[in-house]
Amino acid sequence: MATQGQVITCKAAVAWEPNKPLVIEDVQVAPPQAGEVRIKVLYTALCHTDAYTWGGKDPEGLFPCILGHEAAGIVESVGEGVTEVQPGDHVIPCYQAECRECKFCKSGKTNLCGKVRAATGVGVMMNDRKSRFSFNGKPIYHFMGTSTFSQYTVVHDVSVAKIDPQAPLEKVCLLGCGVPTGLGAVWNTAKVEPGSIVAIFGLGTVGLAVAEGAKAAGASRVIGIDIDNKKFDIAKNFGVTEFVNPKDHEKPIQQVLVDITDGGVDYSFECIGNVSVMRAALECCHKGWGTSVIVGVAASGQEISTRPFQLVTGRVWKGTAFGGFKSRSQVPWLVDKYLKKEIKVDEYITHNLTLGEINEAFHLMHEGGCLRCVLSLDA
Amino acid sequence: MATQGQVITCKAAVAWEPNKPLVIEDVQVAPPQAGEVRIKVLYTALCHTDAYTWGGKDPEGLFPCILGHEAAGIVESVGEGVTEVQPGDHVIPCYQAECRECKFCKSGKTNLCGKVRAATGVGVMMNDRKSRFSFNGKPIYHFMGTSTFSQYTVVHDVSVAKIDPQAPLEKVCLLGCGVPTGLGAVWNTAKVEPGSIVAIFGLGTVGLAVAEGAKAAGASRVIGIDIDNKKFDIAKNFGVTEFVNPKDHEKPIQQVLVDITDGGVDYSFECIGNVSVMRAALECCHKGWGTSVIVGVAASGQEISTRPFQLVTGRVWKGTAFGGFKSRSQVPWLVDKYLKKEIKVDEYITHNLTLGEINEAFHLMHEGGCLRCVLSLDA
Repeated sequence: MATQGQVITCKAAVAWEPNKPLVIEDVQVAPPQAGEVRIKVLYTALCHTDAYTWGGKDPEGLFPCILGHEAAGIVESVGEGVTEVQPGDHVIPCYQAECRECKFCKSGKTNLCGKVRAATGVGVMMNDRKSRFSFNGKPIYHFMGTSTFSQYTVVHDVSVAKIDPQAPLEKVCLLGCGVPTGLGAVWNTAKVEPGSIVAIFGLGTVGLAVAEGAKAAGASRVIGIDIDNKKFDIAKNFGVTEFVNPKDHEKPIQQVLVDITDGGVDYSFECIGNVSVMRAALECCHKGWGTSVIVGVAASGQEISTRPFQLVTGRVWKGTAFGGFKSRSQVPWLVDKYLKKEIKVDEYITHNLTLGEINEAFHLMHEGGCLRCVLSLDA
Repeated sequence: MATQGQVITCKAAVAWEPNKPLVIEDVQVAPPQAGEVRIKVLYTALCHTDAYTWGGKDPEGLFPCILGHEAAGIVESVGEGVTEVQPGDHVIPCYQAECRECKFCKSGKTNLCGKVRAATGVGVMMNDRKSRFSFNGKPIYHFMGTSTFSQYTVVHDVSVAKIDPQAPLEKVCLLGCGVPTGLGAVWNTAKVEPGSIVAIFGLGTVGLAVAEGAKAAGASRVIGIDIDNKKFDIAKNFGVTEFVNPKDHEKPIQQVLVDITDGGVDYSFECIGNVSVMRAALECCHKGWGTSVIVGVAASGQEISTRPFQLVTGRVWKGTAFGGFKSRSQVPWLVDKYLKKEIKVDEYITHNLTLGEINEAFHLMHEGGCLRCVLSLDA
C-alpha cells in the first residue's frame, strides 16, 4: 500500500480536555513499529467507558487523547515481527490483549493479559513508550490500547483479533466490547446452568447481552431490573421474562427479589456501575449459592460494601472484564457465532451516525432509547 | 435406660446474662420429643462463637442460655420417629443441620440446611417452639441447636452425626466446629489446587486447620499472618511455611503479600473475624483469579468493603460456614480420617479442664498459647 511506512494524516475525534466536546482534527498517525499494527478503522461504536473517561471521572484518564474501543477495521500495515495479521485482514481491535505468553495468559484462569498493560494504561505504545498519534507535532495519548475514534489507529499485535472477512464490519464492531462482556459474564464468569433464576440490574446493551446469554444458557427466569419501564418491551426480545422497577416498591430491591424468588436468585449481574446497586445485586442472591457478578464500572474511588455474613452464608461476589473472553482467540469465534445467527448483534444498534456527529452520539447515549450508536469513519 | 422418658436433672453452665461469669446450675432437661435426640455430652470444647455470644456481641443472642457447640457424647434416648441413631450411639452434635430434604440440602450446592433454622435461630426446638432446658421451671434457651455446656442436651435428629464408637470422644469433639471449618474452607469452598500460594490471616485453631488443609491439598507456599510472633513455631507443625507479622511492616499487609508473591496469592483465608483484615485478605489476592474466603465471624453490624475494581479484575470473594461440610454425612468421614491419622486433632488441644472450670477456660481462650480447651462433663 502507498501509505505503508508513511505517516498518515486522517480525521480523528480528539478529546482535548475532559467534558469539552470532542473536536474532529486532522491528526498524524505514525507507522507501526515492531509488534504493532496500523488499522484503518471503518466503524466504531460508543461505550459508557468512553463517556466515563471523557467526563473526567477516570483519574487515570490522560488528555489530549483519542477515545474509542469498540470498533472494526482493516489492517493497513504491520510492524516488524508481526506474523498473525497482514495488510487487508479484517480485524477487531481489543482493549483486552492476549499475548499467550505472560503469567496471566498461561494461567488458564483469566482472560486478563499483562503484556502491554503498562503502556496502554498510560496512553502509549510499549516499544518506545510514546504515542503514534500527534497533532502539529504534539503527541496525543492513546486510550485503552485501541483509540478507535480515528480513521487510522495503531495497536499492539497482541490486541488484534482477525475475523472472517465475510462479517459486516458495521455490525461486528460491537463484538469489541459490550456484547461479549454481557454474554461472557453469563457463560464464562458465572457459568449459569439450565433452570437458573437470573437477575439483571440495568438493561442497557451489556444488561441485554446478559439476558441473551442467560436465555441461551437455559435460565428459567430472567428478571430485568431498571428504573425505566420503557426498557421492558425491548428487553423481552433479548430474553428478559420479568421486569421489576425499584421505583414501584417501597422495600429495598434486594428484598423484593428475595420475596418473588423464594429466597433469592441463583445469579445476579450488575450492569450499571453503581455501588449501591452492586450491593443489592449481591444481597438478592440466594443463601447458600447465589453468585453476583459485577459487570458495570463504578466511579473512581467508590467502594462496595456488605455484611460479611452475606458471604459466610454462601453467596459469592465476583466481577468480570470483557466477559472473561480471551480476545484474540474468542472474538473471532463470536463473529462466527453471529454469522451463524447464534448471537444477536444488529438488534443492539439503534443509531448510525458519522464520526463528524460524534458529540451528538455521546448525547444520544444518555437517552433511554439508545443502545448502541455506530459511527462510520469513512470519509 | 432408667432415664428414658424422664426429666433429667444435671449440671450445666448457664449464661444468665451477657458478660457475666457462667454459673454451674442443676438444670432440668426434658425428654426428647418427636424428631429429637437427648445426648449425654461427655466432652465439649470452647469456640470463639461461644465467647462472642456470651460477650453480648450477637444481637440475636438470647439469655439465659446454655452455650457450647463443639462436643461429643452418647445418645441417651430418642424421640418418636428418630431412626438414624439410637441410645448408646456415639455422636457429635452439629450446629449445621442436614435434613437431606430441604431446598438447601437438595441443591447440591451448599451444606446449609433450612429445616430447623427457624427454631435454632431463636433458641427453641421445632416441635413445640419451646426449650427442653429449664431451671426451677423457668425455661433456658438453647444455643446454635446444640447447647453442649450441659451434661445432657436435646438436639434435632437432623443435627446429630453418628460416629465410629472407637473414636476417643475427648479428642473428636473438636470435629464439631473449628477443625472442619478450616479444612473445609480449603477443600470445599476454595478448592485449593496443588502448587497454589495460600495466605492465612490469624493462626488460631481455624487458621491452623486451614494450613493443614492447604498442605494436604499440595499448596507450594502457606503464608501465615499473625500479630503474635510466637504463633509461628506452632504453625510450622500444621503446614505454615512462611510467617509475616503485619507489625513488622510499614506498608499495608496486602501490599507486603503482593510484593513477596509476584502479584498476590492464589487463595487467602480470613480466620479472625476482623472486617479490615477481610479486606486485606481479598486485596492480597492475585489479579485475575485470586480467591479470598471469609471464615471468621465479624462483630454484628460491621461491614466489609473494597473497590469494585478488585472484583472486576478477577478476584473472587467468598465465605464458608462449617467449611462447607455436610454435617451428618461428612463429620463421620472426618472422624474416620482422624482414626486413620490423615488429619490432626490431638495437636489442637492445649488444655483440658472440667465443666466446673468453664470460666477459666473462657479466660484461657484469650491467651496466645491456647488453641482448644476441652472440658470434661463427667461428674
